[in-house]
Parts: sequence; structure tokens; C-alpha cells
Amino acid sequence: MPTGELHYTTPPKAAATTNNSAVVGASDEGWLWSQIKAEARRDAESEPALASYLYSTILSHSSLERSLSFHLGNKLCSSTLLSTLLYDLFLNAFATDPSLSSAAVADLRAARERDPACISYSHCLLNYKGFLACQAHRVAHLLWRQARQPLALALHSRVADVFAVDIHPAARIGKGVLFDHATGVVVGETAVIGNNVSILHHVTLGGTGKVGGDRHPKIGDGVLIGAGATILGNIKIGEGAKIGAGSVVLIDVPPRTTAVGNPARLVGGKEKPSQLEDVPGESMDHTSFISEWSDYII
Amino acid sequence: MPTGELHYTTPPKAAATTNNSAVVGASDEGWLWSQIKAEARRDAESEPALASYLYSTILSHSSLERSLSFHLGNKLCSSTLLSTLLYDLFLNAFATDPSLSSAAVADLRAARERDPACISYSHCLLNYKGFLACQAHRVAHLLWRQARQPLALALHSRVADVFAVDIHPAARIGKGVLFDHATGVVVGETAVIGNNVSILHHVTLGGTGKVGGDRHPKIGDGVLIGAGATILGNIKIGEGAKIGAGSVVLIDVPPRTTAVGNPARLVGGKEKPSQLEDVPGESMDHTSFISEWSDYII
Amino acid sequence: MPTGELHYTTPPKAAATTNNSAVVGASDEGWLWSQIKAEARRDAESEPALASYLYSTILSHSSLERSLSFHLGNKLCSSTLLSTLLYDLFLNAFATDPSLSSAAVADLRAARERDPACISYSHCLLNYKGFLACQAHRVAHLLWRQARQPLALALHSRVADVFAVDIHPAARIGKGVLFDHATGVVVGETAVIGNNVSILHHVTLGGTGKVGGDRHPKIGDGVLIGAGATILGNIKIGEGAKIGAGSVVLIDVPPRTTAVGNPARLVGGKEKPSQLEDVPGESMDHTSFISEWSDYII
Amino acid sequence: MPTGELHYTTPPKAAATTNNSAVVGASDEGWLWSQIKAEARRDAESEPALASYLYSTILSHSSLERSLSFHLGNKLCSSTLLSTLLYDLFLNAFATDPSLSSAAVADLRAARERDPACISYSHCLLNYKGFLACQAHRVAHLLWRQARQPLALALHSRVADVFAVDIHPAARIGKGVLFDHATGVVVGETAVIGNNVSILHHVTLGGTGKVGGDRHPKIGDGVLIGAGATILGNIKIGEGAKIGAGSVVLIDVPPRTTAVGNPARLVGGKEKPSQLEDVPGESMDHTSFISEWSDYII
Amino acid sequence: MPTGELHYTTPPKAAATTNNSAVVGASDEGWLWSQIKAEARRDAESEPALASYLYSTILSHSSLERSLSFHLGNKLCSSTLLSTLLYDLFLNAFATDPSLSSAAVADLRAARERDPACISYSHCLLNYKGFLACQAHRVAHLLWRQARQPLALALHSRVADVFAVDIHPAARIGKGVLFDHATGVVVGETAVIGNNVSILHHVTLGGTGKVGGDRHPKIGDGVLIGAGATILGNIKIGEGAKIGAGSVVLIDVPPRTTAVGNPARLVGGKEKPSQLEDVPGESMDHTSFISEWSDYII
Amino acid sequence: MPTGELHYTTPPKAAATTNNSAVVGASDEGWLWSQIKAEARRDAESEPALASYLYSTILSHSSLERSLSFHLGNKLCSSTLLSTLLYDLFLNAFATDPSLSSAAVADLRAARERDPACISYSHCLLNYKGFLACQAHRVAHLLWRQARQPLALALHSRVADVFAVDIHPAARIGKGVLFDHATGVVVGETAVIGNNVSILHHVTLGGTGKVGGDRHPKIGDGVLIGAGATILGNIKIGEGAKIGAGSVVLIDVPPRTTAVGNPARLVGGKEKPSQLEDVPGESMDHTSFISEWSDYII
Repeated sequence: MPTGELHYTTPPKAAATTNNSAVVGASDEGWLWSQIKAEARRDAESEPALASYLYSTILSHSSLERSLSFHLGNKLCSSTLLSTLLYDLFLNAFATDPSLSSAAVADLRAARERDPACISYSHCLLNYKGFLACQAHRVAHLLWRQARQPLALALHSRVADVFAVDIHPAARIGKGVLFDHATGVVVGETAVIGNNVSILHHVTLGGTGKVGGDRHPKIGDGVLIGAGATILGNIKIGEGAKIGAGSVVLIDVPPRTTAVGNPARLVGGKEKPSQLEDVPGESMDHTSFISEWSDYII
Repeated sequence: MPTGELHYTTPPKAAATTNNSAVVGASDEGWLWSQIKAEARRDAESEPALASYLYSTILSHSSLERSLSFHLGNKLCSSTLLSTLLYDLFLNAFATDPSLSSAAVADLRAARERDPACISYSHCLLNYKGFLACQAHRVAHLLWRQARQPLALALHSRVADVFAVDIHPAARIGKGVLFDHATGVVVGETAVIGNNVSILHHVTLGGTGKVGGDRHPKIGDGVLIGAGATILGNIKIGEGAKIGAGSVVLIDVPPRTTAVGNPARLVGGKEKPSQLEDVPGESMDHTSFISEWSDYII
Repeated sequence: MPTGELHYTTPPKAAATTNNSAVVGASDEGWLWSQIKAEARRDAESEPALASYLYSTILSHSSLERSLSFHLGNKLCSSTLLSTLLYDLFLNAFATDPSLSSAAVADLRAARERDPACISYSHCLLNYKGFLACQAHRVAHLLWRQARQPLALALHSRVADVFAVDIHPAARIGKGVLFDHATGVVVGETAVIGNNVSILHHVTLGGTGKVGGDRHPKIGDGVLIGAGATILGNIKIGEGAKIGAGSVVLIDVPPRTTAVGNPARLVGGKEKPSQLEDVPGESMDHTSFISEWSDYII
Repeated sequence: MPTGELHYTTPPKAAATTNNSAVVGASDEGWLWSQIKAEARRDAESEPALASYLYSTILSHSSLERSLSFHLGNKLCSSTLLSTLLYDLFLNAFATDPSLSSAAVADLRAARERDPACISYSHCLLNYKGFLACQAHRVAHLLWRQARQPLALALHSRVADVFAVDIHPAARIGKGVLFDHATGVVVGETAVIGNNVSILHHVTLGGTGKVGGDRHPKIGDGVLIGAGATILGNIKIGEGAKIGAGSVVLIDVPPRTTAVGNPARLVGGKEKPSQLEDVPGESMDHTSFISEWSDYII
Repeated sequence: MPTGELHYTTPPKAAATTNNSAVVGASDEGWLWSQIKAEARRDAESEPALASYLYSTILSHSSLERSLSFHLGNKLCSSTLLSTLLYDLFLNAFATDPSLSSAAVADLRAARERDPACISYSHCLLNYKGFLACQAHRVAHLLWRQARQPLALALHSRVADVFAVDIHPAARIGKGVLFDHATGVVVGETAVIGNNVSILHHVTLGGTGKVGGDRHPKIGDGVLIGAGATILGNIKIGEGAKIGAGSVVLIDVPPRTTAVGNPARLVGGKEKPSQLEDVPGESMDHTSFISEWSDYII
Repeated sequence: MPTGELHYTTPPKAAATTNNSAVVGASDEGWLWSQIKAEARRDAESEPALASYLYSTILSHSSLERSLSFHLGNKLCSSTLLSTLLYDLFLNAFATDPSLSSAAVADLRAARERDPACISYSHCLLNYKGFLACQAHRVAHLLWRQARQPLALALHSRVADVFAVDIHPAARIGKGVLFDHATGVVVGETAVIGNNVSILHHVTLGGTGKVGGDRHPKIGDGVLIGAGATILGNIKIGEGAKIGAGSVVLIDVPPRTTAVGNPARLVGGKEKPSQLEDVPGESMDHTSFISEWSDYII
């Protein structure tokens, strides 16, 4: 199961929306795929210079899974790891584990809904390195769980080279996750990321030393982690929490609270931190704590 | 117009030097191009192993525009976006909009003058990912303004993959801009960067949430932004201001002042911040605030 | 000599272990290479899909140097810098300077010993972009010392593009160095990194402005630098010191002390900082200062 | 049905051996594929430099069809027809039409049995351009019969470029066919080639002018056509006939007779030509007519 | 002038049709190009798997010249002669010499009219190696006449490798020429080929020894040369003549006569050879001499 | 020993000139290599568009062997046989067997002296597919003699694909051999070609059936074989003999005689054939027999 295993008594709204995803999954993907094709067709017509690209990546394929497998195979291949080999690998993974498709669909929706710069589903499918790196990770994670470590790590390495996104194959990531911009993201081996989380670029979910075992952060559902935040150690970021950009977080953050600064402090104070009303992983409100924070400014 | 539109009553010296760039542009480029060719010829003679590279990228071309188009086409191509297609795209863009050339010239000069590690113009032209990413962005921005969004975004995506520099095609960037090291730079859709700005690596000019509209920073002429600084929201960084490395800036910074820290504070205090004498975007003085700042150190 | 030239009266334990590396080097490499081949053979047998990759990169080669030259040549080539040219360059460099091999061996050991996610030497050799970028840097540094600047810079540029690791060819780096994750690392021209140092991703060893000369940090033996730390200027980080993740360091840090925060402060106070017992560059203990640091948390 | 449709009252021995190929096909292919893998494993062990090639082309695949699809996809791809697209095309074709597999098996056997220079099945599978061109043709022919002319012709064009073998997609070719050396073979649109035919290089089965319709030769089962022979027009080469090297044949050749010369004459005379005892397409006896022919030599 | 310079008092009908090609050229090309685009559009719609190919090679281009330059650049490039360089070369050639375009148009028409297997203009443009080799030759010939021998010969070499068609850059070739199948064609340095000639595969227009000077055949307008014919020495093949397949021709052949055999003899006898009624280069009647020739058959 | 083993009592003049090649070899190669570099330098200066190509293939290399290894590695590589692997293979072969170098030198001289279209040594080195195929064959033959059949055959296959020249790795070829144009040449497993032989394109030295053993032609020193000649079986073509273009030769040809036609007859008659005065393999006189042959023409 590639989804993170953090569970909370009070599920945030975001998690609820994907509760019965097993039921609606197939038709949902059907709608999305036809939408993507319609977008690509429109763009191919308006921009002949791009039509070849759109046909090879989207319009010539019969399903989202084949399109993704083709695109990732061509993006991640190298002179020693051929595109045909990777294409095969991705096709097989999608055929083996249907949750890969539903996760891709949820991630596409997350980007489209939360990122105002995301003008279409096809834009995300083709161009978002965070989305592509995450889907490749899901396949690497499947390989890892099948005890195919060497192949999982080779794939991981290609993703790290090509997208500058470094997610250990063993890390567990939920659905509806948005890696926005994504460059420089590092997620360690025992990290867990819940559903409907939004993570900006340069975010680190890192370990604490050279001892193995469970040593990376656990990110609850609906969390928002701002750009450049560094979260270290086997700590919990509670569901619906918000981590300010550039923060260095070394201790647990309770649900629905905001941590900011280096080292990170809870907005409102350690004892009685302010409670967030909405789900920051979905609202993407990066800066509402400014008014409070500005009090510290000299 | 790809140049940022921020205007100030008191233009800093840097802006002045490019005031009549329209007049001197052509001859200026001529001189620079002959300089680049002379450098490349010298290097090809002293280093036969590199001669093939220098001939294909510089010495076989008749102009800076053709050299840049060739180099970017080969750097940014992929198996689904061929080098010939991109080469055509760049050649057409340079032919359509002469300001692309003058901006490239100003950027080359900026790198040569401000970065002591830049030993020649050809070194910057061939090897500076910040310079190359910025020129590719200028072309993507031209496409964006021509309402060719899908192509602009595809080009943007290639730049983000290849150089790990993520500048939204809609962002407006002035001339004489130096992206030093550049890896991890993220510039959002409605950001504006003035003339003669210097931006180090890992700098983010980010938005504030999932609502569209004008939501990214406006960077005035002559600003210097240190490595890893995160600037969020539709705020103004006044001309000639300096942002310390690693700072997280969420509020306006007045002209010719220095903001440091996480969250960023004005050096000298909010009420009467210290005024800078020179133009930090050109002087590249990253650390003169140390003496003041060290007062905060426990 | 590619090793950093920082010398201290009390060498940390880590430096001692490599003292007579000249003597044991050859046999040590022999053992390691046979170990790597055994790992690759095992993986090729268990994972046919990866066997082709493992044979081309490791199992078909007669030595670590040839394997590395082949792998780097294929990773770093471009349409204008052919793999055969780079392969030749690497082979020649390894033949010219035997210390390149012993440094590679020491770096492989460092990754295997310090990074719990490193499950085998071959995993590091093939997949660690920090390891690969560092070995390519060592060759670029050799070229630089041979006054072959243009070629050194071209190689530097390829490493910066492919791995998003930007180490100036003139920077001097010791042995047994671990660049963990590595994305976004920037090391300036006059920086020096000692032996047995561990550096996480997004770390900057940067300069202070546009004036040339000696302007970058000097990192002592056995230092640990956490993710996202920015160290600026010609300052000394004493041997066995530790720099917290996300710190911005602008002043000297004494040996065996810990600096954290933005701006960085010494743990235990400027006057009488706490002394570290072990060598953090080897122990990789990122977070032991939390208890102390948490006192600052509001 | 990709097999030629020429039928004769007295089927030659060769045709008989493949009569119930539908029954024995699957197990036959199983044996052959395991044989090929054993050969490749032996070669990979004895020749590490080739192991990567053997794993990627043969040893990493689960069936002959996948191996062939991979190998052809990589051989025939170009910058505008990607290997992944061709790989898909071949995989689909093999899944659609099982006779493609049995024909490939029969062709492999033909090469192994008839060509003394063919030292193993894997040698033919990997290296025989005649074999590979023929299998690619079978797929192009399937596309042609599916009324997918443009794709069939694009594939045809790639085969003509890469292998210098030019077989029109509409041409019908039987099983157990050996194209030996194969360079320069040209087979026209309405040509038919029976089972167990052997055709040397530079052989032309050409048309007669610019009028469409049925205008190319029909080659019976078990025919042998020597190097450089040119056979033009809608004529019949009877089953078990032999065409001498360099011959130019413009008229029907009766079964089990030999035609030689330019223009071709029947050995033994037009009225009562000598009858062949064996099946020349299988015996590959190119020169037994020398004694007779030498009578013409001055 | 790339056209052959053979002139005859009685121009065959074929030459007449292209007499005032300078006048009708542009509109003619316009019609053809729109026809090609319409064909490609139809094929892209009916065959999504090929749409990417059709868009990149035809539909994204604004003219036949750009399409051809793109297609040839991608077909003929190698790791040491980049597609962008060749693309530039072809674009420049077409801009320099408009007769290249009109010759391409005439050659496309020749293939469409004379070859019943040519089902569309786009089929010829994309897939006919004879057509493509001939257009590349015309550009090499232009370079040769510009005294750019080394570049002309490098291009010649690529054509010989990629298409197995070996036409010396100095050879002069008229318009409306069809190289059918084309594999193995060899045309020497001082050969001249008139207008409306049709040449099958494996045809040699060769020299006579190691002495330089004018030493290759001169082929008149409207000639048809059958597959595998070898024509050696500075001899004349008169306009409207026909050379039988496999013939070896060492002496002049008068206009409108047929030469067949090895060595070639005139059909009808040396003294009073049979006169052809039509223009064989256009009628493509390869085999009408069979009835006469069969008299020689024993 | 890659040289053919045919020995004759009266060595033709050509063989004599290379008699003490072991003595003069090194200095001879030195002169030739400096000549090639001078030619390439001159061409690079006059043609900037080609300079990159000339530097990468010739001017950046320190010896003919390295240049050839690089050029062949790049020409013959594929997605499954990397250029670096082939480059290594060629470098090792040249280091192992010095006769490969002297043979390459002799072949370069042969092309330059005998082919009037060969305007420089560098032209032959870079562009002659016959020369390149022959040098690659020599390496394949070395592998074959080292009992590395699978690698030899893989290399053979690449040569057959890329150059359309099919020389079995076991065939023995002397020095000073010119394969002119070369497309379509087929040389069988047990064929032997002496020194100073000239062979035109489409020439077959073929076998006689499916029985193994010694079954291919033996070509004596100084022989000239015209275009399209087919020589079949274990027969001897005596030293200094000439085979006419398009001939089909099935019986021994005595030294210094000419065989022409299909089937081939001796010029002057079987009993007392005309004796040649010069060495046709060197004089390249293809057509001096015309006067005699024309007697047969009707």
C-alpha cells in the first residue's frame, strides 16, 4: 500500500473526499483522461509546433497509464537505462497495482485545484516535475515492496538526476499530494506523507544520523509545508498543520497548528497555539501567519 | 516587453547605465560577440579536446543569437522535443524581438562584471546555467505574451528539468540580471524583477496560496538577493535593497535597506533602517551587515 | 593535490584513519572493487531487468577507475560533449593521478559507513549523485591545476546541469567526504573542504561579493554541515564542528562546537560553547543539539 | 495471412515439415527460446564486454516476442520515430497475430539449418539483418492488411534505411524463409514468396513499369535465388526451382529446374530442362550447375 | 546549375513539360505543399500512432523547404554531425538556390507519376530514400560548386551511410529524376544525369580507372536504367534510351534504343537497333524487350 | 595474422612495395598522421561549419589509432552497444596488434593512390565506408582469432547495418586493399583477399551451399574485381587477375588474366588467355578489355 499510514481520530475534510476512491476511481479516471485528451487536442490545433510532442506523449495513447509510462520512460531514460526498458517497467507496474492510477488521478486533481498556475490537467501531466517525480516514486516504491531494491534504487537515482527530486523508494506517500515546483525536495527512507499534503520546493524530510531504523518525519493528512522547510527526525507533523517557509523543525507539531522560524516555534505559543480553521494542504495559504509573526520583527 | 515594469523616482546608478541601450545595443553586441569568438578561438587552440565543442557552439556561428539558439536547442532538447524544433523556435524569437539580444548582452556583462569566478564572456555563454535559463525564459516569456501558453510552458518545463531553474513564463525580468549558480531558483507567475538585479541560488519569489491574480514579489532595480532567500507574496523589495542569505521575507522592504533573518528584519531597525551607499545588485556585497547582525548572536 | 590543506594541531580521529592511505590504498581498492563486483553480480542475477545496466557500468570493467570513467562519461555527456571524449578524459585523469582512485575509495567507504540508506558500495557507485559529482569534480580540479581552465569549467558545467551540484573546479576537497543527497550544493572557488567531512544537500559554501581572491569558507576535517546551511565568506569552520540544518553562518566556528540558527549562534554560548565528544562528520548526529536549542523555542 | 498463397499439387518436402505448425508451434517456440537464452547466457559469461548487450536484448526478456520487439524497436527507431512507439507496435502485433511468432521460429530454424556461418540461434536473432528485416516486414504486412498503410510504409522505410532491405509491406512472404546477407534485397508490392525459400543478397523481385496491379514475381516453395539475381514481372518461379547468381529472369521458370545467365536460360535447355532432385531452397546448393554451365565458357 | 548539361536537338516530351519551370515553379510548389499537408493531416487523423511523426516532419512546417530540411537534418545527423548543423545547412541551401525547390517538386511528381507503389506525395517525401538521397545530393552539389569540398564530401558520406546511395557531390543531376528503391546506387564524380531520368536500385554510373578527368557516363533526358545495370566510362546513353536490368554497358547507346545483357547489346542489332516510341524514363516500361530478347534464350 | 595467406612465386610489384613494412611502418604512419592533421586543420579553417566535426574526429587525437577508434566507435554504436564500449574495444585492439595500424596506413595509401575521387587522406579516413568497414573488420577478425566469436559477430553485424558492407569476421584480408564505394560488398567466412587488391561495390565472394568448411574464393595479390561481380566457391583468382564488372565467376581464373561476363569467360580464350602487363588492383583499369569484349556484341 503506497499510501501513508498515519491515521487520526478526526480526519480532515480532504481525506474524506477520497474516502470511497475505490468505487469512483475508474470512472473518475475516464473523465480525467478524456479531459486531458481534449486539452491536448485543442493545444495541438492552436500550436502546430507542439503537436508532435502532444501526439507522442498524450494523443497517441489509449489511457492515462500508457501516456504516463511513455512520458516517464522517455524522460528518465539514459544511455545505460533504455526508454524501452523503463516503459515496460512502468506499464507493468500500472497493470500490477491499480492504486497507482488512482493516486495519479488524485495528484493531478490536487495540482489543478491548488496551484493557480496550473492551467490544465495536461499541463501538469506533461510539465510538472513534482507530479512526474511522484508518480515515478510510486513505481519505485512498488518495486521496493516487491523486494526489488536494486531496480527501485536505480529508478530513484534517475528521478534524482532528471528532476532534482530525491524521494527514497521506501518512503510512503499518500494520494492527492502536490509537490509544487519540487526542485530540491528530499524525502528520507522512513518518512511517511499522508493524503492531501502540499509540499513546496526545497523541502527536506530528513533523518537524524547514521543509525538506521525509523528516523524520518511523519507528515499527517492535509499538511502544508512551505518552501525550503527542513523537518528532521522521527517526529510528527499533525494533520492539518502548517510549516512556514524556511522553517527548521525538530520537534512534533500538533494538528492544525502553524510552526515557523529557525528553529521553528508554534504560532500562538507552545502552550496554546493558534488553531487553523481550514486545511492548509488544500487552501495553500502560505502567509496568513504574517500578522502574528511580524510581531517578532524588530 | 520582457523587462520588469517597476519604476522608481530615483533610478539607481545601475539602471542609468542601460538607459540608452537601444542606441548602443547593436555595436555593443558586435563588440561582445567578437570578444566571445576571440576567447573561444584562444581556448580551442590551447585545448584541442575542447575545440570541437567550441566550434560547434560558438566558432561556427555568425552571431550571438545563432550561437545561443544552437546551444539552448541542444541543451534543452529531449527525445520528444527535438533540438531542431527548439533551434527554430529560438532563432525565430531572436528575429522577432531584438530586445532578447540586448538583454542577453546585458546579462553577459552582468556576470562578467559581478562574478569574480566568471573568467570570460564565453565561459558565461556556454556554462552558466543561470544565464542560459534566463535567456530561455525570455523566449518563453515572448511566447506567453503571444498567447502561446502551451509552448511557453513546455519550454519552461524543459528549463526546470535541465537547469533546475523554475521561472514561470509570465514572470517579467529586466536586463543586466545575474542568476548566480542558479540551481533551485523559483520565480512565480506574477513576479517582476527589475534591471541590474543579482539573485543567488535557491532563491524563491513565491506566491501566497491557491488564489490567482497578482500574488508574487516585485523586485526593484539593483537589488541583491542572497542564497536561499525566500520572498513570498505580492510585496515590494525596493530598488537597491539587499536581502540576506537564508532570509524569509514576507513584508515590503524599503529601497536601499537590508533585510536579514527568518523572519526577515531590517538592519538598523524597522523605524530607521540603515541606508546602503552602493547598489548591492552590482557590488554583490553579501556580508557587510555581519558586524551589525552579529549583535544578535547570543 | 586535491585534498584540502587545512591542518590542525589535534587531528580528529577520522583523519587518523586515513593517515597511511598511500600504503594500504592499492589493496584496499582491490578489496572494494571485488566487493562491488560481487554485489553487482548478485543484483544482476536477482533482477534480470537491471543486468544489462550492471554489466555495462560495472561487470564488464576491469577496475574501479574504468567503471567510474565509463559511468561518468555516459552520465555527463551531451550532444556537444561526447561520451567517448569524456570517457577518455576520465581514464587519462585516473592514470595521471593515483590519488583520484584512493579518494574515490575513501568516499565510497564514507557513504557506506555513514549513510544508513546506503545498502551497498555498488549502490553508491551507481546512484549517488553526490559521490559521482564529487569524483567528476576531482577530475575537473586536476584539470584546473594543470592550467586547463576551459576544459575544467566545461566539465564543471556538465556536473552542475546533470546533478544540480555546483562545485567550482578550483575548490579543494579532502578524502572520505560524503555529499549526502547533494542536490543544490554550491561550493565556491576558494573553498577548502577537509577530510571526512559530511555535507548534506542545499549547502552553500559561498563568497562575499564581487571582489576576487580568497573569499570562501574553509571547512576543517570531520565537520558535519546540515541540510540547507549557508556558510559565507573566508571563515573557518573548525575541525569536528557541527553546523545545524538551515543555519546561516557568517563568522568562524571553533573546533568541536555546534553552530545553529539564522544567523548562526554557538550552542552553549559564544563565550563557552559546548564541546562535542565525537566527530560529527562521521557520527552524522544531526540533531543532538535539539534539547539545548529547544530552550529558545517560545 | 502473411504466408504466400502459391499452392502446388506436389508440395516439396520442405513445406511438409511445417504442415501442422499450428499444433506444434507453441512448444517448438518454447524449446527455441530456452535454447536462445542458454546460448546468450553462455556468451555473456565468456564475454563480459557483450553481457550488457545480451541481457538487454535477450536475457532480460520473458519471451521471443518481447525480445524481438525490443531489439527491432531499438534498431529501427529514429529521432522522429521513438523506440518506445515501435516497441509498442511490435508487442501489439505479436499479441494480435500468433502466426508472426511461428514464422519467426521457422525463419530462425531456416537460418540455423541452411547457413553454415550461422553458429547459433541467438546469433541469427541478434545479428542477421535479413532475419530482422523479414520480421519487421511481417509486422508491416499485418498493418497493411489492417488498412494502416501510412504506418506500414513508415516502418517499411525504416527497414529500408537501417538494413538496406526493401520489401514492400504488401508483399506476401511464407515461413521458413532465409534472406542470407540480405543487403540490397528489393521485393515489390505484388510479389509472393512461398515457404522454405532461400534468397541471397541483392536479389530483386521487381515490377515491369508504371502500371499498377499484379506485376511482381511469384516465388514457389523451396526455391533458391542466388546473389544478385533480378526477377522481373508477374512471372512464376516454380516450386523447388533454382535461379543462378547474377541471373536476369523475365519469363516463367518451371518447378525443380535451374535458370542461369543474363538473360536467364534453363539448364538442360528450354525444351527438356534438367530436373533437380533435392529442394534447393533448403540444400542451398548454389553451384552444382557449374559443370553444365561451363560448357558455355569460351 | 545542378541540372545536367546534356542537350539534344530533339528534346523528348518529358523535357518539354518542365521547360518553363521557372515560370510556374512557385505556384506549382504551393499546390504540391498544400497537397502534402492535406495528405499528412488525413493520415494523422486516421493513425494516431503516426501523428507525432507527421506533425514533426510535415504539419508543423510552413514550407516544403523547411520540412525537407528538418527531415534530412534528422535522418542524416550523427553524433559528430548534429541535426541542428545539418538543418541550418539545408535551410541555407534552399534559401540560396531556388532551383533546389523546383527540382524537389519535379522529383516528387516523378515518383508519384511513375511509381505505382507511390500512393501519395507525402509518402515519397517521408519515405523514399532515393528521393531524400537525391535532395541531399543537390545540396552537396551546391556546396561543391561553392568550392566547399570538405563539407560536400562529409554530407555525401552521411548519405552513403544512411541511405546506401553513393552519389559524388560533383555529379550533375537534372530535374524530375526518380531513383526507385535506390539502395546501392553509385554515381561517379563526372557523371551527368539529364531530366526525367528513371534509375532503379543497384545502378552504377562508374569510372574506368585511376586516372582523373572526365571518366563517367552521361545519361540523356528521359532514359530508363533497369535494376543492377552497370554503366562504365565516359560514354553517352542517348536521350530516351533504355538499359535493361543487369546490363553491363561499356559503349555509347544511341537515343531511343534499348541495350541489354552482359556485355550489353542493342536490341534489334548494332546496325539498325529498334527505335522506342515512348520515353522510357517516364513510361517505366522495363520489360517490353522480353519478346525480342527471348530469342537469345537457348 | 589478418593478412591473407595466398603466396605466389612471382610477387606482383604492389606486394613488393610493402615487403619491409615492419621496418618502415612506424615512421610511415607518423608522416601520414601529420599529413592527415594538416589536411584537417586546413579544412577546419576554410569551413567553420565542419570544424567541430574535424576536431572531434581528427584534430583532438594524438594518433591515427585513437582517431580511428573514436570515429568507428561513434559510427558503429547503437542504443544497445554504446560508443564508449566500442571505443574501448578498438583502442585495445590497436594496442594489442600493431599490424592493424600498418594495414590501415596501407589502405589509406591505396585509396589515395588508386581512386582519383579521393582528394585527401583525411577524406578517406572520415568518409570512405569501404575503408572504415575494412578497419572494423580487421578488429572483428582479431577478436575471431582470439576465440571471441560472439563479440566479433556483434561487431560484424553493426558494420553490415551501418555501412551495408558484410565481411565475415573469419575472412582474411591483406594490406593495401581498396573497397571502393563498398556498398553491398559480401565476403564469406573462408574467403581470403591478398595484398593490394581493389574491390568495387556489390562484389560478392560467396559460398556454395550449406555445407561448412573451406567454401569461399581466394583472391590473389593485386587483383581488381569490378562492380557487381559475383565470385562463388572455393576457387582461386590468380594474382594480378582482373574480373569484369557484373561477371559471375564460378571457376579458377589464372594469374594476370581477365575474366568477364555471366558466366565469366577469359578474355583471349580459355586456352591462351591474354596476359595483363600491369597490376590491375593498382592501375584500376576497369575497361581496357572493352575492345576485345566488344567483339561479342551483336
